[in-house]
Formats: sequence, C-alpha cells, structure tokens
Amino acid sequence: MKKEIYEKARIRALEFYDRAHIVLTEKEMENVEVADFGLAHLAIEGLELVTYVNTDRVCAKEMVLFPGQTCPEHIHVPFKNYVGKEEVFRCRYGKIFLYIGGTPSVLPKVNPPKETAEYYTVFSEVTLSPGEQYIIKPNTKHWFQAGSEGAVVSEFSTTSYDEYDVFTNPNIRRIPTLE
Amino acid sequence: MKKEIYEKARIRALEFYDRAHIVLTEKEMENVEVADFGLAHLAIEGLELVTYVNTDRVCAKEMVLFPGQTCPEHIHVPFKNYVGKEEVFRCRYGKIFLYIGGTPSVLPKVNPPKETAEYYTVFSEVTLSPGEQYIIKPNTKHWFQAGSEGAVVSEFSTTSYDEYDVFTNPNIRRIPTLE
Repeated sequence: MKKEIYEKARIRALEFYDRAHIVLTEKEMENVEVADFGLAHLAIEGLELVTYVNTDRVCAKEMVLFPGQTCPEHIHVPFKNYVGKEEVFRCRYGKIFLYIGGTPSVLPKVNPPKETAEYYTVFSEVTLSPGEQYIIKPNTKHWFQAGSEGAVVSEFSTTSYDEYDVFTNPNIRRIPTLE
Repeated sequence: MKKEIYEKARIRALEFYDRAHIVLTEKEMENVEVADFGLAHLAIEGLELVTYVNTDRVCAKEMVLFPGQTCPEHIHVPFKNYVGKEEVFRCRYGKIFLYIGGTPSVLPKVNPPKETAEYYTVFSEVTLSPGEQYIIKPNTKHWFQAGSEGAVVSEFSTTSYDEYDVFTNPNIRRIPTLE
C-alpha cells in the first residue's frame, strides 16, 4: 500500500471514530491500522482498526468500515494448542451486514464485491445496528460489509493471531506492506 | 437492595452511558446491574454495569461509577483449571483512579471511603482519562474510584465469575439480593 493511500485512509477512519464518539489516544490516532488485504482496492475490500489490547488471553479492537467497504471472507482456525479465535462484534455506529454459514438469506441487503465475488461462499445474513452484537465462534467462515453510512464496530475476543487467519480468496495478504 | 434504590441508580447510570455516547439496547437499559456489595451505601461503594457478553472465553462489560463512587478492593483468584480473570479497563468518559499493589503513591488523588478504610490495602495509583487503559493481571488486588464527573469504563476480559471474586472486606456480598 502506498504511503499516501494509507495516510488518506487513516485520516478518514479518524472521522468515523469521531462520529461514533470513540476517544483515542494520540498514539492510537497516529497508528490506525489500514488493511487492504493486498488487493489494492481499499474502498471495496478493506478494514481500518485500532487494536486496544492483545495479550495472550484477551483482545479488543475498534474497527472502522467505510461506506460499502467489505472485510473479505475468512475463518479463524485452530492451530497448535489454540482452539481458534472467538470474537464478538458490537456495532457502535452505522450498520454492518455480517454473513456466516447457514441458509442463505433470500433477499440479502448487500452483495459481495463484484470483482472478487467468487471468493464469497457464505450468505446467511445478520444485521447489526448500534448496540447490537453477535458472537462468532472459531471455525466460522464470515465476511461483513458496512451500510451507506459506514460503521464503527467494537470487537471483543480471545487473542488475535491475524497472520493465521485463512481467507477464502487465496490472493489475500492480511499483513500489509507499506511502500 | 430496595427496588426503589435500584431503579434510581439504574436511571442515573443511563445518564452516564448517554454522556459517554454508549448505545445500549432496550433490554440492556432495562437490566443495568447495580452492585451495592451488600454494604447498603451505594453512593459510597458501588458499581453499575452492563455485561455485553460473558462466554466461557470472552467477556466485555461497560461500567459506570457515579462521582466519587468506589468499587471496593478485590482480587480475581485462580480456581479449578482457571488461572483467574485478566481484565483491561479502558476509560471512555470522566476519570478513574485505580489502585494496585506496589509503592504507595505519595499524594494519592483520592482516598478510600472513610467508613471502610480498613479494608483498603493497596495504594499505587494509576489515573485513567478517556482513551487510556490498564491491564490487570489475575491475582492482583485492586480498587478504583471515579473522579468528580463520574466515569464510564469499558472492561475487556477473560470469563467473569463474579461469585469467585475475593473482596478484602469480609462483609461484602458481590451478588446482590433485590428486595
């Protein structure tokens, strides 16, 4: 990701934290993580986040999705002695449409990105508005997209090992490289 | 705790969530937990909270402290196969003064409640303003008090077993009974 794309996304993310009245420290504001998943179309597939804490037991993040932005389909798999990440999404601002396995929703509110639609395979819809939350157990394929206002979503979870996340799209690189 | 004391505290807690721009569901607003620790002086020692989630791996709560209110000294001990609760406090609104073991602070910002001062034994101060956070490892005695504006504090943690918390004051009953 080019430095100017990162910086623009970082500043834009801060506007959403502000709308959600999330107070961040200076250091957190300077270090907002911008994940383009190596796909180079951040506005379509991407995620902005601040990791508050990630110990060997507890993790909490505050995520931003820009309007219509999608976090691509992935799964938190077990490895070694770890049964896999369990996470709770709690919507703070805007709306997110979360998709997991199960009976596909007949009239989904949103669709996967056209460019990479083949890598989206689960279509059972959960809609989260502010104050609403959903528990995602390990080994559950999921993806999510913000509505037209964008979204701010708190994540409460067991330890995050982002480098072990398995994405359906084999072209994805979760850990970004900044040019 | 008398029903009218509970109801008054519940409504008052909602005002603080509102000031912190925390969005709750109707059900959460109706069920705010009010802990008077069985001491019957809620304004002095007490805690108001909403537990968002408490699975066998992940817990998240949103706590309210009224101005000057103290959550009494306690410790999350190991039991059975559980190494004890690890928790992160992140201040969202107001200010909290957290005390843990270690070198006592020379000029502490606040003091333990006069009525129960004998049951406060740790005095190393950590001040948390909005956006600031602190990790409390298991087996760490701690207590905390809100500043003059009150406080709203997010807690991210491993599973909560409130009934196993050990309070320094032997008169404390963590699980309230509502008359």
